[in-house]
Amino acid sequence: MFKAGLIRPTSPGCFHYLPHTVRSMEKLVRLIDQAMQEIGGQKIDMATLCSAALWRQSGRWDLVGKELLCLVDRHNQEYCLGPTHEEYVTSLVATEGGISYKQLPLLLYQITRKFRDEKRPCFGLLRGREFYMKDMYTFDITEEAAYRTYNSVCDAYANIFRTLGLKHVKVQADTGNIGGKMSHEFHLPASIGEDKLMVCGSCDFAANVETLHPDAKSCPSCKGELAESKGIEIGHTFYLGTKYSHVFNAVCLDTQNKPVVAEMGCYGIGVSRLLAASLEVLSTEEDIHWPGLISPYQICLIPPKKGSKETAASLVAEELYDSICAVPHMSNEAVLDDRDHLTIGKRVKEAHMMGYPYVIVIGKKALESPPVFEVRNHRTGEVQFLSKEGVLSFIQEVRVI
Amino acid sequence: MFKAGLIRPTSPGCFHYLPHTVRSMEKLVRLIDQAMQEIGGQKIDMATLCSAALWRQSGRWDLVGKELLCLVDRHNQEYCLGPTHEEYVTSLVATEGGISYKQLPLLLYQITRKFRDEKRPCFGLLRGREFYMKDMYTFDITEEAAYRTYNSVCDAYANIFRTLGLKHVKVQADTGNIGGKMSHEFHLPASIGEDKLMVCGSCDFAANVETLHPDAKSCPSCKGELAESKGIEIGHTFYLGTKYSHVFNAVCLDTQNKPVVAEMGCYGIGVSRLLAASLEVLSTEEDIHWPGLISPYQICLIPPKKGSKETAASLVAEELYDSICAVPHMSNEAVLDDRDHLTIGKRVKEAHMMGYPYVIVIGKKALESPPVFEVRNHRTGEVQFLSKEGVLSFIQEVRVI
Repeated sequence: MFKAGLIRPTSPGCFHYLPHTVRSMEKLVRLIDQAMQEIGGQKIDMATLCSAALWRQSGRWDLVGKELLCLVDRHNQEYCLGPTHEEYVTSLVATEGGISYKQLPLLLYQITRKFRDEKRPCFGLLRGREFYMKDMYTFDITEEAAYRTYNSVCDAYANIFRTLGLKHVKVQADTGNIGGKMSHEFHLPASIGEDKLMVCGSCDFAANVETLHPDAKSCPSCKGELAESKGIEIGHTFYLGTKYSHVFNAVCLDTQNKPVVAEMGCYGIGVSRLLAASLEVLSTEEDIHWPGLISPYQICLIPPKKGSKETAASLVAEELYDSICAVPHMSNEAVLDDRDHLTIGKRVKEAHMMGYPYVIVIGKKALESPPVFEVRNHRTGEVQFLSKEGVLSFIQEVRVI
Repeated sequence: MFKAGLIRPTSPGCFHYLPHTVRSMEKLVRLIDQAMQEIGGQKIDMATLCSAALWRQSGRWDLVGKELLCLVDRHNQEYCLGPTHEEYVTSLVATEGGISYKQLPLLLYQITRKFRDEKRPCFGLLRGREFYMKDMYTFDITEEAAYRTYNSVCDAYANIFRTLGLKHVKVQADTGNIGGKMSHEFHLPASIGEDKLMVCGSCDFAANVETLHPDAKSCPSCKGELAESKGIEIGHTFYLGTKYSHVFNAVCLDTQNKPVVAEMGCYGIGVSRLLAASLEVLSTEEDIHWPGLISPYQICLIPPKKGSKETAASLVAEELYDSICAVPHMSNEAVLDDRDHLTIGKRVKEAHMMGYPYVIVIGKKALESPPVFEVRNHRTGEVQFLSKEGVLSFIQEVRVI
């Protein structure tokens, strides 16, 4: 029912997500869930209201300062709205009083709404004050094992971006207010990106400029030339070491049943930001292009205009729509644009603007016997003319999550 | 990895959800999504930070008062953390500037975390300060159509509770700070329920005592005798009329293209509360019982103890586990409890405590040729001895969402 658009601003950096956006987000969440669970991630869901006491204990209450959205409840207790959850997850693990080495690595993650009082929220979902983040926290007993875990999460991140068809760059990064010993950012190269990256043309070195000397021109690794580019940060990984586990006494038990302060990592994907960034890098001035797998719907069917020469094909359109919906993985992936007071041309244009990966036009050729349908691939611009059987076998190949 | 329990308290009325709870919640959300979409609901996701200005416009800022969790951002703007979203959804629809009668009824809903600064949070998830709620808002053009919509949402609610195998009572209720002309609550009858209900023994009248004269003993509808009972409120529906649409000028266009102030309804299901309440009414002192459909996992397999006479059956156990996981709808529904240093008896007891609907013991009889497995139905206590084929055909019947 919404005339246009995917989100509606409410106050600076806050948005309502409209139905198409919710569908796409839910698919993206499923994809990330699968990737995290494949590497052994267990999904939890931590409280939003974070007790100030815990944040003071870690020293982050003052460190993060104005970026925290804080409140006081009716009993005068102080809270912040969690921007990340290192304090909570570490104390959660600490209260278990010693995780056995048999259960390591322990990978806990959540996909929840986070809050950050950005000074200047901008670029819609790219830099909001409310946003969805996937944050994972890992626990190991040795540095070596923790680095293995760190790499496995980084690999899973790279796989997610590849599955979405997005080119990405992994760069060395600053550890900021999260802290720790090592950090990487994942970026989508984009001219509107707020981060400046230096990428080596000769080896695989890449870094956020923040981590380099202001005048660094050659690669610290191979002395090759560094090229500057811009990126939108969509993921960030931190090797934390014992920074938080030490404060909250989160220990694991080794093979001798001896408590060892956990070696931790933490890892974030900005989920709503990833969605916005992928639209930014894939779309054109005129048309939205979604990463195919997480398009809100896969197919838009456009029946003839009422009163046109092709009107008789309306019935064929409905039959085709029903047949598509009867294909199990497509049952909820097709939309019939039955606003038949509009021309086919106008609706095709709108369908491209909305970014449906496939548009099926039921026009003149649908009156032939047997009927022929025009199938347009939004990404490639390719047009195929297919029989009903052709359409049904074609959609078997469309991937859906 | 968590030794026990489903949630962990953080501060009063706030909790971390552990992995089993997250799985169950996600299934419950899928069930509610299906039910809402079957009646035409479109899923959206509104901002958590609600602008004070909007709440002042509706008059609820002062009315709800201390129950609101409020904050001020770095630019001194006031917000509350949304407990419900009448103001936002109505102004969202208002900005569309007139929804055509062809698109009515319009049903918008979301399933998000809500906040309420309860004076005395208690009973775990039953009365928390952070909770998940499904809130739906409907828009119609005539009172008659709006009542039809109201009834269709109420029917969908009843279906959800039935699908979960929960007995419920629908009662007349007070409209509280939400307002409107008519309201119903949905309750699970339970002795720990905080609401007192009066239910007529002769007709289908039922009401929250709040709506009756303090000394009402006979049914206002048929004069029959009223019986008192207690309930846990799990759903609440309101016929709002034009209370909010009038304030924010949310209009729909009638067949003459004339703007008409929308007739609204709003409808809530306390999702985390429903989960907690259903565990409360179904479980016993010793064992958890989940509503079968939303149990975190459906099956727990228990292989023999290491070093016992049945040790040889361990391989058979793994094979059975793999075969179960190969059944598509069961691929992620079975758990192999391979803590084989524990006796079968101890693990069976724990499995019942955790509430797995089906426990499969791979014991002595698994050494027979062909092997026989003990399948225990947690709800009924029934025990069956089945071959591998028997198990596989048995699990075909297990419903999963």
